[in-house]
Amino acid sequence: MAETSFRAKAKETILEIQKKITESLEAIEGAPFLHDSWERQDHNGHGQANVLQNGRVFEKGGVNVTELELPLSPPLAKYMTDRGKNIDLARISDYKIYATGCSLVIHPRNPNCPTVHANYRYLEITLSGEVQVWWFAGGSDLTPYYLDEADCTLFHTELKNACDFASPDFYPQYKTECDNYFMITHRGFRRGIGGIFFDDVDCLDKEILREFIAKCGDAFVRSYPEIIRKHMDEPFTKEQRRWQKIRRGHYVEFNLVYDRGTKFGLVTPDANIEAVLMPCPLAARWEYKHNIAPGSPEERLMAALATPRDWVI
Amino acid sequence: MAETSFRAKAKETILEIQKKITESLEAIEGAPFLHDSWERQDHNGHGQANVLQNGRVFEKGGVNVTELELPLSPPLAKYMTDRGKNIDLARISDYKIYATGCSLVIHPRNPNCPTVHANYRYLEITLSGEVQVWWFAGGSDLTPYYLDEADCTLFHTELKNACDFASPDFYPQYKTECDNYFMITHRGFRRGIGGIFFDDVDCLDKEILREFIAKCGDAFVRSYPEIIRKHMDEPFTKEQRRWQKIRRGHYVEFNLVYDRGTKFGLVTPDANIEAVLMPCPLAARWEYKHNIAPGSPEERLMAALATPRDWVI
Repeated sequence: MAETSFRAKAKETILEIQKKITESLEAIEGAPFLHDSWERQDHNGHGQANVLQNGRVFEKGGVNVTELELPLSPPLAKYMTDRGKNIDLARISDYKIYATGCSLVIHPRNPNCPTVHANYRYLEITLSGEVQVWWFAGGSDLTPYYLDEADCTLFHTELKNACDFASPDFYPQYKTECDNYFMITHRGFRRGIGGIFFDDVDCLDKEILREFIAKCGDAFVRSYPEIIRKHMDEPFTKEQRRWQKIRRGHYVEFNLVYDRGTKFGLVTPDANIEAVLMPCPLAARWEYKHNIAPGSPEERLMAALATPRDWVI
Repeated sequence: MAETSFRAKAKETILEIQKKITESLEAIEGAPFLHDSWERQDHNGHGQANVLQNGRVFEKGGVNVTELELPLSPPLAKYMTDRGKNIDLARISDYKIYATGCSLVIHPRNPNCPTVHANYRYLEITLSGEVQVWWFAGGSDLTPYYLDEADCTLFHTELKNACDFASPDFYPQYKTECDNYFMITHRGFRRGIGGIFFDDVDCLDKEILREFIAKCGDAFVRSYPEIIRKHMDEPFTKEQRRWQKIRRGHYVEFNLVYDRGTKFGLVTPDANIEAVLMPCPLAARWEYKHNIAPGSPEERLMAALATPRDWVI
């Protein structure tokens, strides 16, 4: 019963994050996102996608929440035991997995504005209705098209503050995990300039971790909108827009080839494919042997993608 | 020695296919492709990419040949034994794999012109220089944006004629393999309207199979250029171009998520990434919940992608 009430609280936190972030972006766009509710065909889950497409500031973006509770199917059980979760396979039909999360990707129109991705999740495995394990997961990372060091520092500093609320160990560890996770191995550089990335977090009191997740959401609201307002009216050229589309091609490559969530979504029966592929940009471009001029702003960005930096001063 | 001279003949056939196909496309474009030679850093392979980008008729295309001979590394040996090739692992350092092939993807500008993909390959596994197994592989498939039944019939009929030269069993079998291979499972439809797809073909005299591969190349030259000439000057709307880019997004999804050759290329150390990703289109688009109007030409195409048809009358 105490567990049930924590689940309700975690869900409320996730919904609050979605609300705050959506409102912060709607205020910049000057128009509401489309609020699109959906339900799984088996009624085991539902969600709300807050989506904007072809906006004035935001070319494509979604701030989505999902809540689901599914029986632990054998492949899902294997996935969980492979990840170190303790499951008694003899009683598999008594297990369920519960997840509530908010995930977002925002692709602005102006190439001087970075793309951003974040997610905030709470999960439980229950046995006959009793919580066996619970954990938080999530992260937040920035993908600029042109490097503005002050933006990177602001973004990372707010994340560090959120992390430090829970533990001084969180930021260094989750920053490194983020730099490792978003590697586009076949190209030898990262998707963006990082942020934080964490999974299976249950090392502290769950109430503290719930507040940590809420503070991660606040970190987004305190940094990304400011970064967008700074650049959204800057002039840009056709060539910069072309570069943005090439980089968005790299974004697609990471998501389709490496991203665990996307891969999981693509093999999940009856998954909401529109939600799984929502992070793909409105426009992407692949050029044969695109050259980056030595000393150009594009080359400056690529150096930061090749070698992670410390952004917090 | 006889084996060595067959390898040279197979290679000549592959180069001849590249030459014929490139010339047939250059004649339509009215301009030469860029002929871009490359060599592996370890000198174990080389190739020539005939590439066109931002052309008048062809938005992006490449007709590439590769020739390589590599020591059979343990992962490659495993890949081959998994595929039923007989390898004495105790003598692994005496094995080599040889491959010569031509592969192409052409994305025309006009949405009334279909995209096409094809490849033609000859492979050998040698032990101390002696050929242990050899096989042919390849295929050819069409990806229209709007369905023109006559185009599909011409394309398939020429492929059937090439197949029938070798065996009446080839076309029905390889047509079905193609329909199965190009499935975009997460979307529930195929990349295109098919063609033929074959691998590990060693069931006939190798000289007959070499001629079969040559005839597959001829089938391309006798069908695709005619299809392009028919549609290349047809007017098209912005909406049709938008649809073409959405479908090119599906093309990217297939290649990055499912295509064996692409996946193999992405995990191969020192692979030529420009060549591996050459099939990606110059422009692709992902829209959230794009709707297809009932009774529209777009819906007519989607029906053909959902359910394979017999195109040869």
